[in-house]
Amino acid sequence: MSLVVVGSLAIDQVVTPKGERECLGGSASYFAYVASYFGPVRLVGVVGEDFPKDYLDILESRSNIDVSGIHHAPGKTFRWKGKYSEDMNSRETLEVHLNVFGEFRPQVPDHFRDSKFVFLGNASPVTQLETLRQIRNPKLTVCDTMDLWIETQNDELRQLLKEVDGVVLNNSEAEQLTQKPQLVNAGMAVLEMGPEFVVIKKGEHGATLFTRDGISALPSYPVTNLVDPTGAGDSFAGGMMGYLAQVDTADHSAFKKAMAYGTVTASLTVEDFSLYRLINSTRSDVDARFKELRDMLSLD
Amino acid sequence: MSLVVVGSLAIDQVVTPKGERECLGGSASYFAYVASYFGPVRLVGVVGEDFPKDYLDILESRSNIDVSGIHHAPGKTFRWKGKYSEDMNSRETLEVHLNVFGEFRPQVPDHFRDSKFVFLGNASPVTQLETLRQIRNPKLTVCDTMDLWIETQNDELRQLLKEVDGVVLNNSEAEQLTQKPQLVNAGMAVLEMGPEFVVIKKGEHGATLFTRDGISALPSYPVTNLVDPTGAGDSFAGGMMGYLAQVDTADHSAFKKAMAYGTVTASLTVEDFSLYRLINSTRSDVDARFKELRDMLSLD
Repeated sequence: MSLVVVGSLAIDQVVTPKGERECLGGSASYFAYVASYFGPVRLVGVVGEDFPKDYLDILESRSNIDVSGIHHAPGKTFRWKGKYSEDMNSRETLEVHLNVFGEFRPQVPDHFRDSKFVFLGNASPVTQLETLRQIRNPKLTVCDTMDLWIETQNDELRQLLKEVDGVVLNNSEAEQLTQKPQLVNAGMAVLEMGPEFVVIKKGEHGATLFTRDGISALPSYPVTNLVDPTGAGDSFAGGMMGYLAQVDTADHSAFKKAMAYGTVTASLTVEDFSLYRLINSTRSDVDARFKELRDMLSLD
Repeated sequence: MSLVVVGSLAIDQVVTPKGERECLGGSASYFAYVASYFGPVRLVGVVGEDFPKDYLDILESRSNIDVSGIHHAPGKTFRWKGKYSEDMNSRETLEVHLNVFGEFRPQVPDHFRDSKFVFLGNASPVTQLETLRQIRNPKLTVCDTMDLWIETQNDELRQLLKEVDGVVLNNSEAEQLTQKPQLVNAGMAVLEMGPEFVVIKKGEHGATLFTRDGISALPSYPVTNLVDPTGAGDSFAGGMMGYLAQVDTADHSAFKKAMAYGTVTASLTVEDFSLYRLINSTRSDVDARFKELRDMLSLD
């Protein structure tokens, strides 16, 4: 089933206890690469004139990624520089240059507008709403968000949450949005804002799914070789949505498996900088790790 | 199979966003009450002259708890007063009066010394070692610890870890003990100190088991009515050890189920102050919640 992601493409400079790299980043890069394990994915984003051909090749060389929605704009590409703490549970943004991404009003190409599964990567809720309304008849729409929009565009974000089917956000964002200090209560309060489901990402502590059918918590896959957490959340979303688009269903049981696929693909991403671990992985690597997670969680 | 717990009995004063109570506390109270769902448990501890008869009745009225190891000493009972943060993920100790617990050198009664399953609640490693050596031929020995002993009796704690089969500790303690900032690496490093298994408790984020057969993470049961987190860790240990003693085995699969029983019994404990939620629960309540957790985690 057709899946589209609208999000950022970036040149990242990442500093972790394991080293420092300048590399391909951005929510749409991680999402699309991971989703492409499961089936075709359409990518809408913008790059500047300085975007390295090598980075474009990484995405273009992947037959399941349709890059015809990448807009090449005059100017410079979105750049982010960040440094992780010793335990890699927190990070400090050292530099952000939005550049061409700052003025980007996504135009979803006409041949993408029939997409059934839609992921709106982190952007202003106004932009996300404009993008969403370009899709003709979606089946499952999911958005990401961040602290900045919760502060500065709270009304617009609440409007967006009424129009999407689902939202993925991290625990501090959920607590900020709802003013509920406990994760379970915060998740249920986000659900009351409109979406059919809410996924709260907790980094190394896994993720929790909230639907009107109940709450499901999932631990993360135990990673022994953590190198760079960048892109874990977008990889999670890519695995989740990629699987849902593949099986073309969205009941509670499919969602749990989708979250598990999100979990294992994110666990691969963080084992190297940028997309390098993903580039060296296949769908069978993903499935093998899924099976490990399933066995780990089995209480039979 | 015979199970003994050696730990504290306390008069707690607990302040949470849900209220304030003076109530029965102590590691051995929680552990024994929870373990008694699964089979007989022998309790070794000390109380002072001020220990309320009501509190003693709670333990004595439970036919599966053998209270003949409770020592009545002249002086006052161990008292702890603590206040939880708004999200209840952290707490501040406002007062500690060790009283009779401070000088307590546990004498395990002769008729308890044939116990096969042994839980050494949080105490100084010297005291825990002395206690352990009173048990004649144990099958499975497990200890708890805390930051104070990691700082002040590090060598003795490392000796203890060579002599027990397992240890339960929380994530900050594991990181403090090993100087490894990431949980997975910290857990593996504790395993290298000697025990056959390590359980790292992560509060609302669940628990992770480390054995030489692998790593298993388990989320917590999603509690929607958190009232008082006191005793969650000791309840977890009580459920885990109670189940292991009941099934009289300790392979990786039994351990996973034991952790799940620890998780669900802890989830009951935190839904009311002190032991009140446990007092109003039965083994079938525990089993029903276990089944919910098992279904939640099933990826079939």
